[in-house]
Amino acid sequence: MASKMASHAPVRIGILGAANIAKKNARGILKAEGGIEVGAVGSRTLEKAQAFIESTGTGATAKAYGSYQAVLDDSNIDAVYLPLPTSMHVEWVRKAAAAGKHILLEKPLAQTTEELREIVDACSRAGVQLMDGTMWMHNPRAAKMRQVLDDPNAMGLLKNILSGFYFMASEEFSANDIRTKKDLDSLGCLGDLGWYNVRFILWAYNYDRPASVTAHPAPAYNQNEVLIHVGATLIWKDGRRACFECGFDRAFTQLVEVGGTRGLLQLDDFVIPHSEDKASFMTSHGTGLADLDTRVVGQQQDVTVVLPRPQETLMWEAFADCVRTVKAGGKPNQHWVDIAAQTQEVLCAIADSVATSGKTITL
Amino acid sequence: MASKMASHAPVRIGILGAANIAKKNARGILKAEGGIEVGAVGSRTLEKAQAFIESTGTGATAKAYGSYQAVLDDSNIDAVYLPLPTSMHVEWVRKAAAAGKHILLEKPLAQTTEELREIVDACSRAGVQLMDGTMWMHNPRAAKMRQVLDDPNAMGLLKNILSGFYFMASEEFSANDIRTKKDLDSLGCLGDLGWYNVRFILWAYNYDRPASVTAHPAPAYNQNEVLIHVGATLIWKDGRRACFECGFDRAFTQLVEVGGTRGLLQLDDFVIPHSEDKASFMTSHGTGLADLDTRVVGQQQDVTVVLPRPQETLMWEAFADCVRTVKAGGKPNQHWVDIAAQTQEVLCAIADSVATSGKTITL
Repeated sequence: MASKMASHAPVRIGILGAANIAKKNARGILKAEGGIEVGAVGSRTLEKAQAFIESTGTGATAKAYGSYQAVLDDSNIDAVYLPLPTSMHVEWVRKAAAAGKHILLEKPLAQTTEELREIVDACSRAGVQLMDGTMWMHNPRAAKMRQVLDDPNAMGLLKNILSGFYFMASEEFSANDIRTKKDLDSLGCLGDLGWYNVRFILWAYNYDRPASVTAHPAPAYNQNEVLIHVGATLIWKDGRRACFECGFDRAFTQLVEVGGTRGLLQLDDFVIPHSEDKASFMTSHGTGLADLDTRVVGQQQDVTVVLPRPQETLMWEAFADCVRTVKAGGKPNQHWVDIAAQTQEVLCAIADSVATSGKTITL
Repeated sequence: MASKMASHAPVRIGILGAANIAKKNARGILKAEGGIEVGAVGSRTLEKAQAFIESTGTGATAKAYGSYQAVLDDSNIDAVYLPLPTSMHVEWVRKAAAAGKHILLEKPLAQTTEELREIVDACSRAGVQLMDGTMWMHNPRAAKMRQVLDDPNAMGLLKNILSGFYFMASEEFSANDIRTKKDLDSLGCLGDLGWYNVRFILWAYNYDRPASVTAHPAPAYNQNEVLIHVGATLIWKDGRRACFECGFDRAFTQLVEVGGTRGLLQLDDFVIPHSEDKASFMTSHGTGLADLDTRVVGQQQDVTVVLPRPQETLMWEAFADCVRTVKAGGKPNQHWVDIAAQTQEVLCAIADSVATSGKTITL
């Protein structure tokens, strides 16, 4: 009876840091339909934590703490959200895991594969759930796209993916954001934006491991030697391929196109959907030229999925389910760990290729 | 008075070869509003030429010949359209130029830069117009896109271009088409499809010469060792870049996105527009994330241009204007020669990069 009550208690999230992305996630947790709440916010000062709680409207459930450690010391907290600069991930994952807290870790997970190993091992040793903050995976659109991609009548054999994810950094972003500072987030736009391109590519190809990655020439850097534009081509043994570019240096876009032998799937809002209520993608098959190549024929269809709640809320609900499973005596869901680690490994291989002027890195 | 009459006589085109693309062009010429007509069709047999004339409805003006040379020997013919396999271009451009015929040459122009030089020099020596068959350039949409790309308020500084052009080859195409045979069209999909990607990229960047090109890894070949999938990244000295992939190995798409510091321009039918009557593109500016990155804001606009006649007809009208200028004592339009040559040179540099396993080729 006690365990049943425990399993019905809300999963209490402690937020470490008061970044903008943490505000988005606090909002996401608030919109969840029961079962999860913001239990604490820790910032470098108590005032900052209090201001965060006030601005996010989480005062009914959240306690304010003037340090990150105080959140870990709160035994009412089940899990933490870590939106800290990537260079701080190893330290705070270790501390959180040692305190028995489950962890939703913002992307990129790590700066190197060594850091990644420490993070994954710390969570594994402690038996806590590790999940990354890739929200679009939890949008029901992803499940619908999965059906199309796996349908040989719709797509045929998957062959290649083209993707771009960019935004134009404001002067304020360029000067102050952690993602433009080498000591805080050494992967720059590759870790921040390329994470999404690479995750989509790996997801679309059912997490089959690429055989190699090759950075495109002439990556661009800011004055802190941080990447602000990078591209790469990924190759699979069976001939599948993917090509993406990302950067902080041009107008916003979030484009992906998957091409198969029979059809294609395309969307222009793969990371942040145009709407919180519904999300669409385009798919076509049998497309080609007709009438002396004067016109394009084929079946084109827009598929729209309704969202019960925003995709970040669905992410938090999925995370809370994992936490409840472990609290009830089950194991952490290894899938979320594996795909986070694979994405990070591919990103690090691309960073290696960038560092060697575009050498092909075998995985 | 005689010269005035001459300038009002229609420009008479001789078509060498009865390929499908020639049928499309014959139809395009028929739709022109005066001033140009199909004057002759030469094929390897008289019967083939007659059948072509019948199927294209050009019998009112076109004479049938059982050889290509016979068309060149017809003094009523002002200019020729050469849709022959690329490996035959040097020979027939030389013969046509020597016969004083102006030339609309199907893309790719040549297989190597040496062949390109011979073609350009032959036309230059003979004082005849040379133009390539890139139809989309003559669509009024191109002029409208040019205005947007050159508008610093709309686009800011141009930064990068992403483009994909593919179609899925049928078994018949793979087995029989000249573009899949090394001795006929050695550049394969690079010459056939990549021509359009590269031309769009060069055009968008106002024909500034790229500093280098680098082929993406793992190009794909068919059983005849002809490229059926290839990609490349082009880099400019000032940091502009472009990335494209093309292939005969996946579902049809013709996508291009140009990104600037302020805005972007995107279209999904850049080669063959969805309609012959109107053509559109999307442009946006000021786009970005708002409200804790939960939604995308900005101005997005679809721009539509009405076509008086199909884009291939407008190409033929532009070509006829050039021919009339030379007939009236003027010079060939060097712009069409220069952009054709530049596109070919960049394609050949990409082919060199492919041949050296992705070595960066400096231009």
